[in-house]
Amino acid sequence: METLKIIKIGGNVINNPTSLDNFLIDFSKIKEPKILVHGGGKLATKLAQQMNVKVEMVDGRRKTNTETLDIITMVYAGKINKTIVASLQQKSNNAMGFTGADGNTIISTKRPVNEIDYGFAGDIISVNTSILETILKLGIIPVFCAITHDNKGQLLNTNADTIASELAIGFAKKYQTELYYCFDKNGVLLDINNNDSVIENINTKTYEELLAKNIIADGMLPKMNNCFHAINQQVHKVCIGQSEMLYNQNSKFTTIQA
Amino acid sequence: METLKIIKIGGNVINNPTSLDNFLIDFSKIKEPKILVHGGGKLATKLAQQMNVKVEMVDGRRKTNTETLDIITMVYAGKINKTIVASLQQKSNNAMGFTGADGNTIISTKRPVNEIDYGFAGDIISVNTSILETILKLGIIPVFCAITHDNKGQLLNTNADTIASELAIGFAKKYQTELYYCFDKNGVLLDINNNDSVIENINTKTYEELLAKNIIADGMLPKMNNCFHAINQQVHKVCIGQSEMLYNQNSKFTTIQA
Repeated sequence: METLKIIKIGGNVINNPTSLDNFLIDFSKIKEPKILVHGGGKLATKLAQQMNVKVEMVDGRRKTNTETLDIITMVYAGKINKTIVASLQQKSNNAMGFTGADGNTIISTKRPVNEIDYGFAGDIISVNTSILETILKLGIIPVFCAITHDNKGQLLNTNADTIASELAIGFAKKYQTELYYCFDKNGVLLDINNNDSVIENINTKTYEELLAKNIIADGMLPKMNNCFHAINQQVHKVCIGQSEMLYNQNSKFTTIQA
Repeated sequence: METLKIIKIGGNVINNPTSLDNFLIDFSKIKEPKILVHGGGKLATKLAQQMNVKVEMVDGRRKTNTETLDIITMVYAGKINKTIVASLQQKSNNAMGFTGADGNTIISTKRPVNEIDYGFAGDIISVNTSILETILKLGIIPVFCAITHDNKGQLLNTNADTIASELAIGFAKKYQTELYYCFDKNGVLLDINNNDSVIENINTKTYEELLAKNIIADGMLPKMNNCFHAINQQVHKVCIGQSEMLYNQNSKFTTIQA
């Protein structure tokens, strides 16, 4: 089977135009079919401040109310997505920007309000790979931002890590999919203050041990859940680390195993 | 040859969510292959005010400086484009949003600075129809906003009327293309204050007479240039009027002839 690389980048790359351009130079050199997934970085927060939009917090997270959804749609699907697409075109990579609404590629459902109302936050129901497959076969690189839709006219703010893992799972029957989570650390660290303490391999058993020792906590937990969900659903390879892992064979990073 | 309808909507439809939804209900019923092109309406101006971005004017037009380009990218490619795409999905139309950078579909060049510096304004050089043709054949409806790129990494603010006419011309060898400019009047009017004074047909000769009589002036001039450019480049049909002309056989509108 042909390889398909699905690469997610976060705020550390997006927040700085030079970091983003450097990343895209490396990304553009990847020869295999590939999909890029990006979140929003700090730009949405900055725009909310400029627009004097008050941020509603629920359970320590920003609630996606109507104003916030508008800002996210403008920043993620507009500014960041199109900046990336134009930059990849410059680098002779024929990119095409997507939300889950475009081509009806990712359908979500608004997160149900139990105790907490997250607003217009979407939980993914299905990924339609057939149109994306045609697009990949044309040599085009889909660039997804962290927005999906409910197929009833509503856009929904959706976790970019989850979009990446669900795309990798969706394509696992057609391609040998590889999922790369790029962030600001060298991988999952034994000591969060020591970037050299990378745990090179984590499997289900060692993950439980790491959880019991509280070595993995907070923001890493949902990311790890996405990793194990993917690796248990026939995704071939799941890696976490700096974007350097994509091209530097000597770099250290974490590989997730079943 | 199969018919391809290219429909451009302006601020009068976009500025009001109810008008937009009503338009999209009618648009979604068009059975032929179709492309929608939209401008930005008043939302970009409103966002500029909210963000305290000063509008630089040149020659009576807004200059597309860096801040304005950011706002346009957020509003056109983000908010408006994705709202339309999600709304069409709800109406069982599989839409996909585009700037000219997406799929490298429309390449422009930054308007040269002679006496006037328009900033990041783009003049179209080429339309690449091959990817769009594949997408149309999948039953997908491309939705273009008024942004293109120079293929060197720069997004460019581009007149939506011109995008529509260049798409119609680009497809004229593959489809029988029909170009519809929807705006707030019933068509080209003999008396601008009388919406019933529609000139039903205008050809090159009668156009010159209308120009000599100052009946066509101001904002209508560039629109008419786009119309005649299209009709002289093998576009099958060019019409101007209210969006009603798309489905109501009794409505009056203006047809441009060679």
